[in-house]
Amino acid sequence: MTAQHPLSSSRIAGDELAQRMRTLGAAARAASAELARASTRVKNHALLAIAASLRARGGELLTENARDLDAARSTGLEEPMIDRLRLSEKSIEAMADGLEQVAALPDPVGEISDCKRRESGIVVGRMRVPLGVVGIIYESRPNVTADAAALCLKSGNACILRGGSEALHSNQAIAISVRAGLAEAGLPAAAVQVLATTDRAAVGHLVAMPEYVDVIVPRGGKGLIERISREARVPVIKHLDGNCHVYLDDSADATRALAIVLNAKTQRYGVCNAAESLLVARSAAGRLLPDIARQLAGMGVELRCCADTLELLRQSAVDARLLKPATEADWYEEYLAPILAVRIVDGIDQAIAHINHYSSHHTDAIVTDSHEHAMRFLREVDSSSVMINASTRFADGFEYGLGAEIGISTDKFHARGPVGLEGLTSQKWVVFGNGEVRGG
Amino acid sequence: MTAQHPLSSSRIAGDELAQRMRTLGAAARAASAELARASTRVKNHALLAIAASLRARGGELLTENARDLDAARSTGLEEPMIDRLRLSEKSIEAMADGLEQVAALPDPVGEISDCKRRESGIVVGRMRVPLGVVGIIYESRPNVTADAAALCLKSGNACILRGGSEALHSNQAIAISVRAGLAEAGLPAAAVQVLATTDRAAVGHLVAMPEYVDVIVPRGGKGLIERISREARVPVIKHLDGNCHVYLDDSADATRALAIVLNAKTQRYGVCNAAESLLVARSAAGRLLPDIARQLAGMGVELRCCADTLELLRQSAVDARLLKPATEADWYEEYLAPILAVRIVDGIDQAIAHINHYSSHHTDAIVTDSHEHAMRFLREVDSSSVMINASTRFADGFEYGLGAEIGISTDKFHARGPVGLEGLTSQKWVVFGNGEVRGG
Repeated sequence: MTAQHPLSSSRIAGDELAQRMRTLGAAARAASAELARASTRVKNHALLAIAASLRARGGELLTENARDLDAARSTGLEEPMIDRLRLSEKSIEAMADGLEQVAALPDPVGEISDCKRRESGIVVGRMRVPLGVVGIIYESRPNVTADAAALCLKSGNACILRGGSEALHSNQAIAISVRAGLAEAGLPAAAVQVLATTDRAAVGHLVAMPEYVDVIVPRGGKGLIERISREARVPVIKHLDGNCHVYLDDSADATRALAIVLNAKTQRYGVCNAAESLLVARSAAGRLLPDIARQLAGMGVELRCCADTLELLRQSAVDARLLKPATEADWYEEYLAPILAVRIVDGIDQAIAHINHYSSHHTDAIVTDSHEHAMRFLREVDSSSVMINASTRFADGFEYGLGAEIGISTDKFHARGPVGLEGLTSQKWVVFGNGEVRGG
Repeated sequence: MTAQHPLSSSRIAGDELAQRMRTLGAAARAASAELARASTRVKNHALLAIAASLRARGGELLTENARDLDAARSTGLEEPMIDRLRLSEKSIEAMADGLEQVAALPDPVGEISDCKRRESGIVVGRMRVPLGVVGIIYESRPNVTADAAALCLKSGNACILRGGSEALHSNQAIAISVRAGLAEAGLPAAAVQVLATTDRAAVGHLVAMPEYVDVIVPRGGKGLIERISREARVPVIKHLDGNCHVYLDDSADATRALAIVLNAKTQRYGVCNAAESLLVARSAAGRLLPDIARQLAGMGVELRCCADTLELLRQSAVDARLLKPATEADWYEEYLAPILAVRIVDGIDQAIAHINHYSSHHTDAIVTDSHEHAMRFLREVDSSSVMINASTRFADGFEYGLGAEIGISTDKFHARGPVGLEGLTSQKWVVFGNGEVRGG
């Protein structure tokens, strides 16, 4: 169960598992105090050493990854899952590169901001500090092991990583490089612990040890995230759905509207920031919808339409096989597929109301030339990312300049939208006094 | 149950109560959208109108408060509780004044910060927005009704307030002014709903409606807060304990040390930011402790001492009746009384370790002339407020310049330490584009 005994734990009994998880949690908690004190130089040293080790051990990583791939094929894992599981020279280089990018990011820890002198004489400010211990639970992609370790390390947090059982050998191979890098920089081995158990009960323990784990970040399918949210006894940084909207306003420019809808829907289908619903102002529908629909249909995108849309598009030479009437359920749906729900709305008010009702509060965009409507959309749409005249696909840590992201949050608490280093920290109050006491 | 039928609900059955709470939650949710859009001018208008109404209705408030006081005396409520319950001309003026102060604070809603242009061409920033609906559960002080309503209103949140049953008539009288002010400003009545039921089950429903309530702020005794934390299905902004420490470092100035310890321990005993433990560096104990102990003992403060402290103070003409040996439990204790735990530690390392182990992560202070020790204490003590050469009593929203506080958080998530208007908001990402789409 500990990092040093990677493969010994699959057969251990329930009580023993609980005890081992507590031991591991206690080690993480102890390491977190050391990490919180670690200098930027030492943390960057570790990150660069991990990158170098991953590059040096590329062959070994591919060998271990091949074991996972063989097992995955023999258990009949679906091809998209196998694809996510696969490492290559290129993806190993990308992992190493990612570690170096995180090393190059500014260290958020220790930053003091908002200092103000008060009438009493004290100076009050806020210091950014690590959260403590982060638990990350993810599925098949082994690169998350390196990415998540890097972000936690740089933000001064200890972490416990629990990857998918199908990636066990790949993750343990990556963990060897992580431990080597930590050791080279003189940081404790328990700063990053990669669980070697495939026992699902380990997750249940991990999310229910508030004394050892401060926050859980689940990355994966909705089922995983729902289960973790239900069982967690600590805060969870998460998003369940990405039901993202593009709204074409009365004054939307036709060229922009087309480009943004096509990009938001079709650049990648399986991602959380892809558009799943298109809303069009009634006054602009005749001008904009037919051309957009023809282009989407030409790419094989099925359109689930409101009655008005259906009527309009049936007269517009759109492939009729791709036109379907929308049901109420369609407005809630995250298709992650070449399907788009389309609704004609009366205007900005109904668009905002629709989005605030059906959206998963992930990312929603307006295409407009009206400053007033742009500002209303920005203020009133209650989502973690709200965009004017840009594709929903930009909702991403790299695109926002966070350098990297540990996940995306659709909650309003603590961290919202793409979560980078800052979301892995909190701010405590610091008071600089000169012997001041409080008056009567 | 609704604001319009203040006293009709004590006898309603369980199912009906659940349904009524849901109706009230839905009304709050609807009102929150209007409040989020409300201009600063309109919100301030409401705040000032509430203040004016409270002043104009002072006699009525005192009459209703007298009903609560009579009932409290007849049920044998303890004198400190009755004291908290009591309104006076002065406390009504203070409530009105508090509302005016909140009106004068900058409006956090809509502020856009951290705007950056990205290589893709988009400009990314963060906009501060309300959380939505805040549930506040509090005990005997009726002034919380006005204070909490003011902070929620200004931060653009709808709120549901559930005061103590002993303050029912006082709270309902204050609620009349709140409704009058909302109506005068044209804001919906459901922006602030003051529960009129005394049914404890209402709290259970309130904290378990994530679809209608975004966050709960419990204010009161540890029992109340523990119960709410256990039952809540939404985030809770809270602190359970205030086990605050003062650490006197090797180089602590004797005058400052004395002033800070006396202020932190004795200015008020029953408050969460009072010191409960005193740590003294071994090298400074002989120089500092005897005088401090004599002064504390002179004010009737009992000292629960480690063995070394006991030995030192028994030779120092400190009233022996006030010297007691400390048990392990004393290091965890929040006395809220004229009692102080005292321990001699080897130095800064042991002081930090002691605090991080026993502290409730509320507020901890060092008295030192060493810059290095001051900075280490600041960085390494994991508490919501960490102070150098200042009294722990400063940990307070007004003292920190927040204008007012809705509560204090000892959690690391979202809001930490005193929580003012900002803690009642979140930041969403806003993207200003010009037709940009994401590259391949």
